[in-house]
Amino acid sequence: MAPILPHPGASRLAGVTYEFDAHTAVHDNGDGTYAADLDPGWVVGGGVNGGYLLAVIGTALRASFPAKPDPLAVSAYYLSAGTPGPAEVAVDVRREGGSVGTASVELRQDGVTRIAALATYGDLDRLGDDVRTTAEELDLPPVEECVANTLSPKEILEMAPMMGRFDMRFHPDHVGWAVGQPNGRGEIAAWFRLADGREPDPVSLLMVVDALPPVTFSLGMMGWAPTLELTAHVRAKPAPGWLKVRHATRNLAGGMFEEDCEVWDSAGRLVAQSRQLARQPRPV
Amino acid sequence: MAPILPHPGASRLAGVTYEFDAHTAVHDNGDGTYAADLDPGWVVGGGVNGGYLLAVIGTALRASFPAKPDPLAVSAYYLSAGTPGPAEVAVDVRREGGSVGTASVELRQDGVTRIAALATYGDLDRLGDDVRTTAEELDLPPVEECVANTLSPKEILEMAPMMGRFDMRFHPDHVGWAVGQPNGRGEIAAWFRLADGREPDPVSLLMVVDALPPVTFSLGMMGWAPTLELTAHVRAKPAPGWLKVRHATRNLAGGMFEEDCEVWDSAGRLVAQSRQLARQPRPV
Repeated sequence: MAPILPHPGASRLAGVTYEFDAHTAVHDNGDGTYAADLDPGWVVGGGVNGGYLLAVIGTALRASFPAKPDPLAVSAYYLSAGTPGPAEVAVDVRREGGSVGTASVELRQDGVTRIAALATYGDLDRLGDDVRTTAEELDLPPVEECVANTLSPKEILEMAPMMGRFDMRFHPDHVGWAVGQPNGRGEIAAWFRLADGREPDPVSLLMVVDALPPVTFSLGMMGWAPTLELTAHVRAKPAPGWLKVRHATRNLAGGMFEEDCEVWDSAGRLVAQSRQLARQPRPV
Repeated sequence: MAPILPHPGASRLAGVTYEFDAHTAVHDNGDGTYAADLDPGWVVGGGVNGGYLLAVIGTALRASFPAKPDPLAVSAYYLSAGTPGPAEVAVDVRREGGSVGTASVELRQDGVTRIAALATYGDLDRLGDDVRTTAEELDLPPVEECVANTLSPKEILEMAPMMGRFDMRFHPDHVGWAVGQPNGRGEIAAWFRLADGREPDPVSLLMVVDALPPVTFSLGMMGWAPTLELTAHVRAKPAPGWLKVRHATRNLAGGMFEEDCEVWDSAGRLVAQSRQLARQPRPV
C-alpha cells in the first residue's frame, strides 16, 4: 500500500496534522488513480463544497507532478453533486513539458463522475520576481471590526456545515443579506483563514476561491448556486496569515451568473484569481 | 462519408458560404472524431490563432450535441502550437443532462495534442429572459473615428496574417503601441466584425475572445503571448452587426498575465466573457 499523501507544503507543528490536510489527503493506488474520503464537514446545500473537491483533486495532481508541485490553472466542470464518503481521483497526464505539466482529471464516486477537470501545474518558486499588478488591493476594515461567520443565522449554519472549517470576517457592509437587507451590489468580501490555524498554500487556495457564500446572497437571492464551471489561477505562494477574499458578479442573466473571486495574502499580493459560471440560486 | 458540417446557425445568402464557415467546417468521421483543415489564413506569431482553434472545436462540439447547439462554457488548455493543415477533433461526451451536456475534447495534429478542452453546451434560446447586467457597456468612439487594423504596421501584418480575416477599429487611445507609444493601461478595445460580413453567432464568439492583439501590447511588450489556458462563457446569442471587444489585464506577475475579454453586441448586451492565463510575450 502506498502511503497517504497529505500536502507536502502544509505548515504543521510536530505531531500535529491539520484538519484540512486530513480531509484532503489521498491514497496513491499506483495506477494513476488516488483514493480519497470526502469529509461530511464540507457539506453545503445539496452536496459537498466544490472548492473542497477541487483541493482534493489538487492534492492528487500534486502527487502526479513531483517536480511541479503547484497549481497554476485548474478548470473544473461540475457534473453531479459530491457526497461525503469514498471517492476516486483519476489523473491522465496529457503533457509533461519543461516548466509546466498538464493533466486531465476526474473525481468519481461509485463510478459516477462528479467533476471533470483540466489542470496545468508548475513551480511557483521558479517564476520570475517581477510583479506589476495594477489591480487595487482589497480594502477591508480591520479584522476586529468585521462580522464573524460564527454569527451567521442558524439556517445558514445548518445549510452549510462547512462554515465550521473557517474563520471568516465579513465586511460589515456586505452582510446585510444575513438580516434580510442585501446591499444589492453583487459583492461579498471577507477576511479568511482556516479555523485551526493551518496556513494557506497554493492547493488550499483552490478551496478558498469557492468558500464564501454565493455572491448572489448580496443580491437578495438566498439559496445554493450550483457551479457549472470554475477556473482558478494561482499566481503566487500565499504568505502566512489572514487572506482577503472578494466575490463579485457583473452579469446575472438568463438564469446564470459569473462569480469572480480574488484572493490577496497578508503581504498584499494578489495570489489567486478565479471565475465561475453558476446557475442562479434555487429558492430556499 | 458523412457530410461536412458548417455552423448551422451561420447567417448566409443563398449559395454563399462565408470564409469563417469554410475555415471552421468539420467532417464527421462517425466515431466521435471530426476531421478539420486548419487554414493558413489564421496564422499569428508562432502558430495558428488559439481562438480560431477554439471555434473549430466548437463546431465539432455543436455536431456532438444536436439538441444543445450553443457553447455555454469552454475551457481550453494549449499544449502545443497548431499549424495549418489537417487536424482531428476527438469528442468524449462526459454527461448528457436535461438542459446541458458536457464533453472532454482534444484537437490533435499528427497524433500530437494541440488543445485539451472541456465544454458545456446548452440552448441559449431556452434560457430565461431576465438580464440584470451591472457591468457597464463598453464605451467606444464611433466606428469612423476609430483606427482600422488595415493600418497596422507592416511587421504586425506580417506576423499576423489572421488580421486579414477581420475588420477591427481600435479605440484611438488604445493603439499608441503601433507607433511606439503604448498607453501603459493594460487595455485594448475595438469594434469588431468579420471582414466578409459574416454575422456573429455563439461559436464565432469563441474566436472573437482571442482575436485582438495581446493586451500586453498596451504595456509596451510587443510579441506573441502564448496562451496556457483560456475559458470563455457565452452568455447570449449576439445580435447582427458590429461587436465591441475589450481586453484588459490587472495582474502581470511572475512572467504571466491574465487577460480578461468582454464582448458586447450591437443591442448592448454582454454576450461573452473570457479570461486567459498567458505567458509574458517573448521579445520580437
